Amino acid sequence: MYQPRLETMPREELERLQLERLRRTLAHIQRNNPRYAQRFSGIAPEDLQDLSQVKELPFITKDELREAYPLGLACAPKEAFVRFHMSSGTTGTPVINPYTRADVEQWAEIMARCLAAAGVTAADVLQITPGFGLFNGGFGFHYGAERLGCFVVPIGPGRTLMQLKFIKDFRTTALGAIASYPLRLIEVAREEGFDFRETALRVGIFGAEVWSDETRRYIEEAMGIETFDIIGMTETGGVGLGIDCRAHEGIHVWEDHYLVEIVHPETGEVLPDGEEGEMVVTTLTREGLPLIRYRTRDITRILSRERCSCGRTMLRVDRIKGRTDDMLKVKGVNFYPRQIEEILMRHPETTPEYLIRIGKRAGKDFVEILVECRQRDESLREKLAEEIYNFLGFHAEVKLLSEGELPRHPGKAKRVERVEG
Amino acid sequence: MYQPRLETMPREELERLQLERLRRTLAHIQRNNPRYAQRFSGIAPEDLQDLSQVKELPFITKDELREAYPLGLACAPKEAFVRFHMSSGTTGTPVINPYTRADVEQWAEIMARCLAAAGVTAADVLQITPGFGLFNGGFGFHYGAERLGCFVVPIGPGRTLMQLKFIKDFRTTALGAIASYPLRLIEVAREEGFDFRETALRVGIFGAEVWSDETRRYIEEAMGIETFDIIGMTETGGVGLGIDCRAHEGIHVWEDHYLVEIVHPETGEVLPDGEEGEMVVTTLTREGLPLIRYRTRDITRILSRERCSCGRTMLRVDRIKGRTDDMLKVKGVNFYPRQIEEILMRHPETTPEYLIRIGKRAGKDFVEILVECRQRDESLREKLAEEIYNFLGFHAEVKLLSEGELPRHPGKAKRVERVEG
Ligand SMILES: [Zn+2]
Ligand SMILES: [Zn+2]
Repeated sequence: MYQPRLETMPREELERLQLERLRRTLAHIQRNNPRYAQRFSGIAPEDLQDLSQVKELPFITKDELREAYPLGLACAPKEAFVRFHMSSGTTGTPVINPYTRADVEQWAEIMARCLAAAGVTAADVLQITPGFGLFNGGFGFHYGAERLGCFVVPIGPGRTLMQLKFIKDFRTTALGAIASYPLRLIEVAREEGFDFRETALRVGIFGAEVWSDETRRYIEEAMGIETFDIIGMTETGGVGLGIDCRAHEGIHVWEDHYLVEIVHPETGEVLPDGEEGEMVVTTLTREGLPLIRYRTRDITRILSRERCSCGRTMLRVDRIKGRTDDMLKVKGVNFYPRQIEEILMRHPETTPEYLIRIGKRAGKDFVEILVECRQRDESLREKLAEEIYNFLGFHAEVKLLSEGELPRHPGKAKRVERVEG
Repeated sequence: MYQPRLETMPREELERLQLERLRRTLAHIQRNNPRYAQRFSGIAPEDLQDLSQVKELPFITKDELREAYPLGLACAPKEAFVRFHMSSGTTGTPVINPYTRADVEQWAEIMARCLAAAGVTAADVLQITPGFGLFNGGFGFHYGAERLGCFVVPIGPGRTLMQLKFIKDFRTTALGAIASYPLRLIEVAREEGFDFRETALRVGIFGAEVWSDETRRYIEEAMGIETFDIIGMTETGGVGLGIDCRAHEGIHVWEDHYLVEIVHPETGEVLPDGEEGEMVVTTLTREGLPLIRYRTRDITRILSRERCSCGRTMLRVDRIKGRTDDMLKVKGVNFYPRQIEEILMRHPETTPEYLIRIGKRAGKDFVEILVECRQRDESLREKLAEEIYNFLGFHAEVKLLSEGELPRHPGKAKRVERVEG
């Protein structure tokens, strides 16, 4: 553990700290940004006597952050900012998260905790493959690694052949990546006759995308590594909000820095532990863009608030199932791409590359699932269609493709295509 | 000034410090890397009684650094390294420069000095456009800015429209870039009707390429900024070896960290101040890859060792005229691309985009100069050919192109094309 005393703090003490920091965050907003403070008019920090009262405060959405472009919700004078990161969302106005020096320190601290939870120490060689720049991934790993003193291979995205060469030449032990990138590494390694078993690679820390347990097992098997699921986003201050520990029994959230709730995606009602809903995050220590009740759109549930076998007391959430804006609706059924991925990946004949094509044709909903296979086999096609029907309740047309037929995209994987007409 | 006491140190004290650090660097190599130490067998640190004795030590070349890939000349155990940067050379084995924690601190210090010499303070907004990752440019600016506490726009290369948008939206005051990138910004700004005079941009810090005084004036005029010429390379520990101050009377080299000599490119003989030759750099404070007498291949001369009007005592070298490996030879005449650029840029009808095509045709040397012009004009063609003959002594065929005809490359500009047959 990077900070054993903090990471194993008794929950009572942790919750007292959270309440105090929630009040301080509210006061910070009210003191520094009148426009932002308006949302909380009539509420004084000292009115909050109990953590559960957080539910009396209004939500804030990604659209509201967008409307504040560039610095409309910033809670420090411009001179206090040292950098910003930007959401890599689709088109339209981006979300800017400006960092004060203290915010950079906070980020380095939580990322160092994440790396340490994955077993990374100063003796490791960490290859950082997410992009440096406006996207928060690369710099998140950078700051965490700097804290721990790892030997960083600062390669960034792409150049897959060079990535493999460096894994060998620098005896890389830990890999940080967007979750679909290891699939590309595995694919190129196969083409090149590169054997991961002959490398020193031991740990993979992957995030920024929803990836199924099946994909996870596939990666672990092909690379011979243990993988860790890291969460966090630009809005909350970047990657590092939480990670699963070596027990792999849920993702620990760094609760001294973040308060999480699970709410009903439509009604906004707070849901009891164990129930699936949208994760809502309140930042407790951020200065530049503090957030109260940010609607992350990530679907998960609280697994446990009990002490984990690793010793940490920080609560655990389930792996992200999907994003509310990734939810697909067809023939009256709601589902997430990850659910399709789970079905496909159970069959060893398929590769992890697939595309869900969805839309209307002659006024009717249709779903096509394109999936690459190691060998084409009509019976597989029918089996997959049947399983999709059994698990999800709709008919999809399954098309089997040869390996390499689907286009590969740099950065995040593209799993859904909406077709009109 | 970032470190006034060090930057204005009396030269006698500075030279004593250099001698002490030269001895320490030699001892460091001898203690930590037997293979590297072989080059200095029979020489003990205490044998060096005077700085001028550095010339008794052997040179080291880029090829020798390449042969040591990945860490053959590294002077610290692998656990002591925290990152590396890599030369962005052409094909073939790269040069790896591994950094210890102290090397990162050293880099941050010299880059903070460079930024401060250009008038940048914590109140500035610095847009960093060189790439982050293996190339040293982006992280060099990053570390310097972190020291000073600037508000960094960590955008990295490309996305020129977004660069312009951010210059406006974040009221960027200082721009760090590879020297040819401002030309691209100016070009796109013209197309978009973007007016730099309406921005807060004040300072440009450009390097990593040879750029003529004419290009410099063109950029300063078009962007309404003051520009600074920054030098340094992967091998010496990255960008930041030196920069010109606001007096613009030569590039100050941070001599407490680097010892520079100018030598004859062929004989290796040390040349007197004022004479043009190849810059040779000895690092005085680097741990990971200390260099003794590194042949940089950059052609320049020592302009002055007198105290500058800015107060700094650090010696000044001229702007880089060319690189020995960029030297072109045609019909018995040696010249650098920058000399062609100077001639072309004196004519307001030309744009800064040009290409030198050189090779043999039917057994004979030929040179073609392709240059983009705002208007095509036969008399300009003849005038340029005549000036090239007058200044350089050979006949070149000049071809006038329309604006935008030459391909634009991301990263460093391509100014020379060698043609066979
Ligand atoms: Zn645990
Ligand atoms: Zn000066």
